[in-house]
Amino acid sequence: MTYRAPVEDMDFALRELASLERVLGEGFPAFDMDLVQPILEEAGKFAADVLAPLNQPGDEQGAQLTGNGVIAPVGFADAYKVFAEGGWMGLAAPEKWGGQGLPKTLANAVLEIIHGANMSFGLCPLLSLGAIEALVEHGHPAEQEKYLPKLVSGEWTGTMNLTEPQAGSDVGALKTKAVPNGDGSYAISGQKIYITWGDHDMAENIIHLVLARLPDAPAGSKGISLFVVPKVLVNEDGSLGERNNVQCIGLEKKIGIHASPTCVMEYDGATGWLVGEENRGLACMFTMMNSARLNVGQEGVGVGEAAYQAAYAYAQERKQGQVKGVDGPAPILHHADVRRTLTTMRANVMAARAICYACGVAADIAKTSDGDAGEAAKLREDLLTPIAKAWSTDMGVEVASMGVQIHGGMGFMNETLAAQLYRDARIAPIYEGTNGIQAIDLVGRKLGMANGKAMADMLGDVRATAQAARETNDPQLVQIADRLVAAADALEEATGWMVETMKADRDKGLASATAYLKLAGDVIGGHFLTRGAVAARTEGGTMRGRMTALAGFFAETALAEAPGRVSGITRGGDSFLSESEALFGLA
Amino acid sequence: MTYRAPVEDMDFALRELASLERVLGEGFPAFDMDLVQPILEEAGKFAADVLAPLNQPGDEQGAQLTGNGVIAPVGFADAYKVFAEGGWMGLAAPEKWGGQGLPKTLANAVLEIIHGANMSFGLCPLLSLGAIEALVEHGHPAEQEKYLPKLVSGEWTGTMNLTEPQAGSDVGALKTKAVPNGDGSYAISGQKIYITWGDHDMAENIIHLVLARLPDAPAGSKGISLFVVPKVLVNEDGSLGERNNVQCIGLEKKIGIHASPTCVMEYDGATGWLVGEENRGLACMFTMMNSARLNVGQEGVGVGEAAYQAAYAYAQERKQGQVKGVDGPAPILHHADVRRTLTTMRANVMAARAICYACGVAADIAKTSDGDAGEAAKLREDLLTPIAKAWSTDMGVEVASMGVQIHGGMGFMNETLAAQLYRDARIAPIYEGTNGIQAIDLVGRKLGMANGKAMADMLGDVRATAQAARETNDPQLVQIADRLVAAADALEEATGWMVETMKADRDKGLASATAYLKLAGDVIGGHFLTRGAVAARTEGGTMRGRMTALAGFFAETALAEAPGRVSGITRGGDSFLSESEALFGLA
Repeated sequence: MTYRAPVEDMDFALRELASLERVLGEGFPAFDMDLVQPILEEAGKFAADVLAPLNQPGDEQGAQLTGNGVIAPVGFADAYKVFAEGGWMGLAAPEKWGGQGLPKTLANAVLEIIHGANMSFGLCPLLSLGAIEALVEHGHPAEQEKYLPKLVSGEWTGTMNLTEPQAGSDVGALKTKAVPNGDGSYAISGQKIYITWGDHDMAENIIHLVLARLPDAPAGSKGISLFVVPKVLVNEDGSLGERNNVQCIGLEKKIGIHASPTCVMEYDGATGWLVGEENRGLACMFTMMNSARLNVGQEGVGVGEAAYQAAYAYAQERKQGQVKGVDGPAPILHHADVRRTLTTMRANVMAARAICYACGVAADIAKTSDGDAGEAAKLREDLLTPIAKAWSTDMGVEVASMGVQIHGGMGFMNETLAAQLYRDARIAPIYEGTNGIQAIDLVGRKLGMANGKAMADMLGDVRATAQAARETNDPQLVQIADRLVAAADALEEATGWMVETMKADRDKGLASATAYLKLAGDVIGGHFLTRGAVAARTEGGTMRGRMTALAGFFAETALAEAPGRVSGITRGGDSFLSESEALFGLA
Repeated sequence: MTYRAPVEDMDFALRELASLERVLGEGFPAFDMDLVQPILEEAGKFAADVLAPLNQPGDEQGAQLTGNGVIAPVGFADAYKVFAEGGWMGLAAPEKWGGQGLPKTLANAVLEIIHGANMSFGLCPLLSLGAIEALVEHGHPAEQEKYLPKLVSGEWTGTMNLTEPQAGSDVGALKTKAVPNGDGSYAISGQKIYITWGDHDMAENIIHLVLARLPDAPAGSKGISLFVVPKVLVNEDGSLGERNNVQCIGLEKKIGIHASPTCVMEYDGATGWLVGEENRGLACMFTMMNSARLNVGQEGVGVGEAAYQAAYAYAQERKQGQVKGVDGPAPILHHADVRRTLTTMRANVMAARAICYACGVAADIAKTSDGDAGEAAKLREDLLTPIAKAWSTDMGVEVASMGVQIHGGMGFMNETLAAQLYRDARIAPIYEGTNGIQAIDLVGRKLGMANGKAMADMLGDVRATAQAARETNDPQLVQIADRLVAAADALEEATGWMVETMKADRDKGLASATAYLKLAGDVIGGHFLTRGAVAARTEGGTMRGRMTALAGFFAETALAEAPGRVSGITRGGDSFLSESEALFGLA
């Protein structure tokens, strides 16, 4: 009943939904499509054999703060060693720093597997990835030489330090200070909260990336700089030196991800070095954030898949009630209501997976291609990132809740995996920019880019998919195509309204940002499922029936609802904006 | 930041949405409308002063199983004494047994307050209510005399014992045995699980109502009888005698409601007495269940309200980001996205509240009126019960999740009330018949009653509300009326399809039962909010603006989506029923 990597679905999604073959070429000389399945299978084996068995014990035991720092639950340090030695950390890192130079999309698919098996564990490499990316993009050569090989090998891990008690979504409000020491280094002082894997005993060093203010820096987000602050100082020869003045002074008690230490970090004149330019820390941070946002979306997919698998297994095993054609009590899978819930879960997981992979493919192309193709891919990456993050993580919570429901009373018991997933999944819509922030990013920045080209291109793809479905002349696919076209029309109308309204009355636009993002995710997700149903017509085994059913179900539910959701966007804000005094006491 | 009873909203909902004055008359001689507000206020005072302060400590400490039975968290026993001495247990119980003979609707509103302040605590009286109801309706006079006065006074508490490991939703699979002792009593033996407040130290006796099988009883649900089994045997003079052979042998570790002991109960030849007739236990149990289902719906309302209040308070207090017109960081309430979430929460809570109160009013009238009025009310009660239970508890979970989101990172911390509510709320869709069972009850039994009269009458009310809104000639209300009519059309179409399909292809109907219930709840909830907006035109204070905004928002979101949800009902099942082999390996 524990997680197994859904290699067939993932491989299909990478190939047929996200068109991974588009990344082939100069950018990834080490990659060819034949690598996909073996890598997913190997990751699946590691996840099933090593990570999944630690998931529930890790939840029960939790990370612990001792006089000697934070201790991960039993078995995690050994599992991390297997992870690092397997080379999993460096899949998509540059070969220059010891990585394998593979597409990020593939690395993200592996991360999905790791999160599906053990989300708490997966957060450690997720944060390391962000640190690697920031140093690769913005690090000074000396810092790159010093930290990247060990981060990429997984010998050391990384963290992101943004949040302070008064500075959450408004990161510009942070107060941590960085004072030049006169030797090129800085003394970093302040308190950071919610630092994931901020301390632990799984690696001999932890490389913190920390946002702080230089003396006399401008106020707000324009006065923030990024620093690299190792837990243990690194000597010139690469050996470990003195312990730096940074420590974990508290662990949060949380709804879920108990095995992942969420640390309060105290920087007390810790020695750090500037990453990128002075006062340009936010731009550097966004490199990490964008990547991390997609990774968190992928985490939503992994947790959703795990919830689906647990619910499906339970539905096969648990017997209640009589069903025609079954002797004695029937597995609850035979009850149509249970199958509907499972179908809802699976369709949504597959849609989110496709959105995340497509975002990854766009990111890979944007990074390695020039000219129009590169620019278009960058627009696509920018457009899909907030959707991948928010839509997939909301989906993860909803699907995890459905998983609890299928388990009945057992689902509410903490010993049940479904219960843990319900608790674990809930963080993902919150961190790396709340889903509200993602929605604001989508309507406030992404829709306006290049005169609206990002969403226009996306809608073009959606319509092309509908056309391809229609041209099959398969009545089921034609019906799906009709739903998809109507949904695309709805999204187009909502988009036009949103672009205009954000110019004319920003608050009114923002009042519908979340509803808009949800609609966009539904339509884009439906587009990918439709594409899958078309592609699966030539697939063997059960893939054709499965994709037709998932796309058909999604078309008759989420896509069919799309036109009715436009008014919630264009008119939904009217009532509470005009009655904010009666509702909330706001003048 | 703790719960305060929303007396103004509740009073308005009782009067204007649920038409509580319709219960006035012979059935409730002790009741008049002037009692409503003082009782709600007094309950609110008890909840705020006594129950709410125990909610988070109770969650942290949890109930504990000792060698001496189960111990409630610190303070709960004293709070329970205040509750009993306040006469809260007997509000709606017959005066004959020491109750106050008030309408159940009012008692349910009080229960909503108690659950809002402390759901774990509220479960104890919720179960006692079921026991009282079963004994009042089905108990033999000797048992009534023996148990009812002490249950009604709250000196003793009650439980319901249905579930066994192999018998959950399929209660007919239960195995607990009842063997006649020859003296009119029975020896009850077996194990029951998930018994809420099955043991505790808050009252000197606990009256268990237990489903069991007599020797040679027919198989399945037709061979089940109901027994009353006191924890401590009661002597003829009413004094307490020997300890009965029933004990709690284990407590479940759960996602939430930690202060409420969920017991594994071992009956080892415990002495019990038959309630009602032999092999008619299921019918007696349904008396308790129906009442409990509405009460659980009301619990969803209470938890949803608590989540709303906590989120609203946090949004006023937490400052992040700059907003035009506010100096320095602005309370996040100023962000439009936050206000939309709060509006969604509040509109849904109010809609669920109205559905539950209307169900209560119908139950009160059904119980006290003869003839057509009584019959129509009974149909309404039967129709609304599964909707009140399922729609309100799903709402409770969703709204609690929104509450977490508004809290950002703090929402994921167990010390935050929002986090507790997210965990507590999750049980309500599961127990007292899962929400899937409610949906099956709705489409399988309730729609077919009296040739479909129950839903036809309901739709008539919905259309009358739309007409009343239209006749105001207020453009906002006319727009709401249009949405409501379109939504009613959608529900009518879905209802027609469902009734036909349940006859022709039951599995296909059941495949859409949950989607149908959700649609019905949305339309009926929207009808009540619309009624509220019409009624509030003559209200003072902020009620008019508030109700117009809530109804308007709900109309442009949930009601506007209703027509697009019909295909999810009429066609949603096609795909996965026909592809169950490809999806689930089912032939």
